[in-house]
Amino acid sequence: MEMNKIIRDILDKQKLINNVFFIACGGSLVDLYPAKYLMDVEANGIHTSFYTSNEFVSARPSKIKDDSISILCSHGGSTAETVEAARLAKDMGSSVIALTHTAGSGIELEADYRIIYQWGDGVSVQDQPMAICLSLMNELLYSTESYPYYKPMADGILKIDGIVKNAIKSIQTRTREFAEKYKDEPIMYVVSSGASWGQAYGFSICSMMEMQWKHASYIHSGEFFHGPFEVTDRDVLYILMMNEGKTRNLDERVLKFLNQYASKIEVVDAKEFSLGEICNDVIDYFNPILFYSVMCEYRNALAKVRNHPLETRRYMGKVPY
Amino acid sequence: MEMNKIIRDILDKQKLINNVFFIACGGSLVDLYPAKYLMDVEANGIHTSFYTSNEFVSARPSKIKDDSISILCSHGGSTAETVEAARLAKDMGSSVIALTHTAGSGIELEADYRIIYQWGDGVSVQDQPMAICLSLMNELLYSTESYPYYKPMADGILKIDGIVKNAIKSIQTRTREFAEKYKDEPIMYVVSSGASWGQAYGFSICSMMEMQWKHASYIHSGEFFHGPFEVTDRDVLYILMMNEGKTRNLDERVLKFLNQYASKIEVVDAKEFSLGEICNDVIDYFNPILFYSVMCEYRNALAKVRNHPLETRRYMGKVPY
Repeated sequence: MEMNKIIRDILDKQKLINNVFFIACGGSLVDLYPAKYLMDVEANGIHTSFYTSNEFVSARPSKIKDDSISILCSHGGSTAETVEAARLAKDMGSSVIALTHTAGSGIELEADYRIIYQWGDGVSVQDQPMAICLSLMNELLYSTESYPYYKPMADGILKIDGIVKNAIKSIQTRTREFAEKYKDEPIMYVVSSGASWGQAYGFSICSMMEMQWKHASYIHSGEFFHGPFEVTDRDVLYILMMNEGKTRNLDERVLKFLNQYASKIEVVDAKEFSLGEICNDVIDYFNPILFYSVMCEYRNALAKVRNHPLETRRYMGKVPY
Repeated sequence: MEMNKIIRDILDKQKLINNVFFIACGGSLVDLYPAKYLMDVEANGIHTSFYTSNEFVSARPSKIKDDSISILCSHGGSTAETVEAARLAKDMGSSVIALTHTAGSGIELEADYRIIYQWGDGVSVQDQPMAICLSLMNELLYSTESYPYYKPMADGILKIDGIVKNAIKSIQTRTREFAEKYKDEPIMYVVSSGASWGQAYGFSICSMMEMQWKHASYIHSGEFFHGPFEVTDRDVLYILMMNEGKTRNLDERVLKFLNQYASKIEVVDAKEFSLGEICNDVIDYFNPILFYSVMCEYRNALAKVRNHPLETRRYMGKVPY
């Protein structure tokens, strides 16, 4: 079912939509963040909540009911706590939309609406969870609120794949040099703001901790000066994802400081990758889609030079937990 | 003005309260988290948002208006972005409550309601921001919703200082041993869940990065198994704050795993510190108050053994940024 049809169908059934719950784990949770952020900034009346699945299941929010939509994501479709969260959300009266790469999986059985997304090399980012969820929320805002950005958002979703593909091409030398230079760093800090906050988190916990067994921490650019910056030093690695849009000034403030007191700084700047082709009113929401793909090239390069393939695991799916 | 009078006064002025915005930076933001968490779990109709001040200022949420309360906190009262956020929130029609330790400071000028809190050794935790905000939200829920926990919450707020003081006494040997043993660790992971998620963040960015210039990262117990646990190893330090209440099962799952695959594990368990004296229906919300004070003893011990006083700064308030 297409995005607009899902939203229309829900609006036919539910008198009111007051709440959108975004629920998932790890990398899938990160995929939901841009849509949550869009809603936080743009929605006049609809509220959002953002949960790691087991927190949602264990300490269920009282406000989830028949005025709610729950959007869940599980790549393999069988993440136990996400399937349980879907069941619970439905029990509480919420409409449930499940995104998964895996048709026929557990999460599908619990969902009212299923979106089987594509994945892998060559797939357009438009068909992947971040853009799908942005599309869903774009339709929701258009259908329920006085919202001026429907067309610019839809246009951005059409343009973003081309921007990403060009960025990937242009970044190859730089990612290789980064990997050579920083392959043995004991820790890195990943810093960003706005819609890309989820990418700072995701690159740390998935790309580094999970896929490279490397230590990482993640800092919001706005929080940097309220504690975290005291660890800044010449020998500490910082990756700064600089957004285009309203929170760019926060990232720039961090850069200015790092340029003065750090030496190992990798700047990944959306401005360099022609994100400006997207309308300025909505450009913020596309930073994380760009950064995800660009940062995948960084992790690919690290995996190669470190001889540590991205799929290597010691615990996940290998031991009981 | 007392908490119930503030809420009553706002309810006299505003027809409706749909939104509570919690806005601050760093340690002050951490102080607001338990109240936000209480609202997320217990409120049926009132929604919450949680912002680092500069994010709020730069990408202002559309939904803030005259159905909103904004609660801001700034210890010194002059944090520029928090003062600006207060001004902006007020401009948008929201009632503004400011918490500060510093009477006569900038944040007071922008606020409709001022709460000057106490601070320092010997001050009851009841008179500090976390408990004050819990009190405020307890009054708000009692005044606006069908909410069964007003009395247990008020009772918990009366009891928590005694529990904390006993915990501090009982922990002295252990924190000294911890500091001796782990003073030279290159990084630590701080893990927790539920209302204490903010404490995992706060201990990392304030107590370790800011006050000890030590590397730290923070992981939600529910997210641990979705990526972060792949860095677990015998030589990696984990601090696990185990909650009493609904998310304890998440923390226990982490402990079971760490006991098998890690060796450097510091467990800080609310169960050991008689938090159970507080009614089980609301016990979750008091974990972070207990953990904050207990973890202060850990950082005191580290500061002492490392000969790095907690107030030592190299950038904050010393260089322009």
